[in-house]
Amino acid sequence: LTALPFRLQIGAMTQTHDATRPLAQAARDAARALGKLDSARKDRALLAMADALLAHEARILAANAKDLAQAREAGMAPAMLDRLALDPKRIAGMAASLREVAALPDPVGEVVEAWDRPNGMKVETVRLPLGVILMIYEARPNATAEAAALCLKSGNAAVLRGGKEALGSNLAVMAALQEGMAQAEVPPMAVQLVQTADREVLEQWLQHDDLIDLCIPRGGQGLIDFVRKAARMPVVRHAQGVCHVYVDQAADLEMAVKIAVNSKASRPGVCNSAECLLVDVAVAARALPLLGKALVEAKVALRADARARAVLDGARVPCEAAKPTDFGNEFLDLIMAVAVVDGLDGALAHIARYSTGHTDTIVTQDEKAAARFVREVESSGVMVNVSTRMNDGGQLGLGAEIGISTSRLHAFGPMGLRELTTQKYVVRGNGQVRG
Amino acid sequence: LTALPFRLQIGAMTQTHDATRPLAQAARDAARALGKLDSARKDRALLAMADALLAHEARILAANAKDLAQAREAGMAPAMLDRLALDPKRIAGMAASLREVAALPDPVGEVVEAWDRPNGMKVETVRLPLGVILMIYEARPNATAEAAALCLKSGNAAVLRGGKEALGSNLAVMAALQEGMAQAEVPPMAVQLVQTADREVLEQWLQHDDLIDLCIPRGGQGLIDFVRKAARMPVVRHAQGVCHVYVDQAADLEMAVKIAVNSKASRPGVCNSAECLLVDVAVAARALPLLGKALVEAKVALRADARARAVLDGARVPCEAAKPTDFGNEFLDLIMAVAVVDGLDGALAHIARYSTGHTDTIVTQDEKAAARFVREVESSGVMVNVSTRMNDGGQLGLGAEIGISTSRLHAFGPMGLRELTTQKYVVRGNGQVRG
Repeated sequence: LTALPFRLQIGAMTQTHDATRPLAQAARDAARALGKLDSARKDRALLAMADALLAHEARILAANAKDLAQAREAGMAPAMLDRLALDPKRIAGMAASLREVAALPDPVGEVVEAWDRPNGMKVETVRLPLGVILMIYEARPNATAEAAALCLKSGNAAVLRGGKEALGSNLAVMAALQEGMAQAEVPPMAVQLVQTADREVLEQWLQHDDLIDLCIPRGGQGLIDFVRKAARMPVVRHAQGVCHVYVDQAADLEMAVKIAVNSKASRPGVCNSAECLLVDVAVAARALPLLGKALVEAKVALRADARARAVLDGARVPCEAAKPTDFGNEFLDLIMAVAVVDGLDGALAHIARYSTGHTDTIVTQDEKAAARFVREVESSGVMVNVSTRMNDGGQLGLGAEIGISTSRLHAFGPMGLRELTTQKYVVRGNGQVRG
Repeated sequence: LTALPFRLQIGAMTQTHDATRPLAQAARDAARALGKLDSARKDRALLAMADALLAHEARILAANAKDLAQAREAGMAPAMLDRLALDPKRIAGMAASLREVAALPDPVGEVVEAWDRPNGMKVETVRLPLGVILMIYEARPNATAEAAALCLKSGNAAVLRGGKEALGSNLAVMAALQEGMAQAEVPPMAVQLVQTADREVLEQWLQHDDLIDLCIPRGGQGLIDFVRKAARMPVVRHAQGVCHVYVDQAADLEMAVKIAVNSKASRPGVCNSAECLLVDVAVAARALPLLGKALVEAKVALRADARARAVLDGARVPCEAAKPTDFGNEFLDLIMAVAVVDGLDGALAHIARYSTGHTDTIVTQDEKAAARFVREVESSGVMVNVSTRMNDGGQLGLGAEIGISTSRLHAFGPMGLRELTTQKYVVRGNGQVRG
């Protein structure tokens, strides 16, 4: 019953005023127009948008400086401040990624499969845009440009809702993007920014399942839960990555050390970094001291279960006792949970219980163990002798990505241009009818 | 504010008792087990299920007779009674479709694409089950067996909720299916029937987005709207088909007549039948009398706009004046709306406004017109010189289908075994890490 005021509010809002509906309708109309634009026009727009970002560097940096000052005053953590901050190099990076997207092949109109039927019908599956995409993300202004570019290239209208701390920066970025779009005569409502951080307004947006085809929330559990509850349209979550590295008894230990350190320490704040190291009991006495030392050298704090701790203590590798909540936790920091497991069965059971279905890796020279791991692990990235960090659109050769989906429906894993489209059946014949 | 009691109810329910959650959890657990079964075991189960349906024919028919008697008493329309009714032939049909599904290739584990990266990583995309599918459909007991078979073969646990009028029949069908599953040692909770027609219970089911991966509602607008509002998990709608046949000025008129009649009259009660005939003004005077006569001969009642009526009246083809609501309406009956449009532009505008995105067809010998129609129509089936009825899994060569999706996300159009799966990335290497 504590839910009452919240629900009352939604009920009341949808029936009284709803300023977002005309905006959603405008996005839908823009999507129709955008879906018909040829690749050359979209690419011209993307290049003009890149130029405009560079031309308006000073204005964008000034807006960003104000956002940063406010955020600092509000006590934002340094890691978050770093994500929020823009500088000439980052603006150049945004422009470069717009140009990169322009250079990628246009997915719209791509014939995916083609076959003939015995009655002479020629069938094709052809990619088309999803329609309107509502993207909700946190305070990183570069995401605004990247999401706009990927949606535009794939023929989708974008409704972008960035973190409230970045609103000024996002408005300045959007003004530049709009200028570029206007130069290529792309409809202005093809990309729009939700200009308030008000959650009630977001709730309104999330009601328009007749006008918005997909919502992509990208962020922490609080945001994801909010969207899950409020959204009526399909949601593809870009949520937590609790990723595992399992060192099997048949692992090449040198390789295991390299993969464990890279998976955890190369960039601990991202979703494809590993949070937990699992070591086969059969090899723990030999492997754990090596792994532990290398991780500690890479400044990783270890939180070990009782069996792992016994080995690490014996080898004088500093570690603390893991709490039960350390398993399944996304530290996003130089902290790693460590457990000794009973062979592949134990590893699979641990992963089935704690993995968020993002990325899990096995280190082994045993092909049978690798095959079973590949078959049974249900994550979007299942890796054999490879760092968890390789589950990434760029690394896999998919081009720029809008994020990594942890939802199974529609797109599971890195979500690039193709995953922002759907497919229709095109059937050509000469009078075929149903018997 | 009228929404208050409804929302209060949901709020209260989720916080007090929820008998469906343990069942959803059991489905999730069964899905994990099912996802690991090899094809042979699943096929053995499907064949045993087919045998059990035939063995329990008498019991199923007795249960169906009771359902029919109750429905007749409640005043169910004859067309609906026909859909509810089973007979030995229909039960044999159910068994045959289970055997057909057993004979289809197993999508689970299928490698969809494979490529190598410059750093030596071998990448594959591999199909895996979606997980747990909640299927909501109306009073056709054969749907119970077909949905169970398609979900089982694709490794998904199925929660089936059929129409309340068919509950007795569905329970009898399920008892037979369970017997077959038990013979192949498939976990019994892999397929379960929601044994009440209570909408409040359905609302509970629709809250479990952490346990259920996909909801497929298949039915009328009332059901679809209910699910849209109540569901938290992704929904792929199998909703209305307001399908169009456009006769272009460059049409072969004999072919146009054949396609229009087949699209409308071959089975007017299904979603891929046409509801509206559009005729290019340039050819209306010649084409409409031929089309009109043939449709009337096929017992189709015509509802024509002013321009079409003028021509039909002149040719003494009986028709009545169309009301505005006749356009965009799914008659599901031998009724067809007719309009004269200003060439391809007019047809595309009409279709953009009224089509539900299911199936639309153009009849033309003009390749440019066909190409533009194919490019601009955003329906799941875009047909050239082919009946709308051909947008069907069997006709397109996809095998058995669970329905035709009118949602763009994940699966748009006929939804077969493949569309009941997702894909993961499998990456094999020899120590690749992120630079």
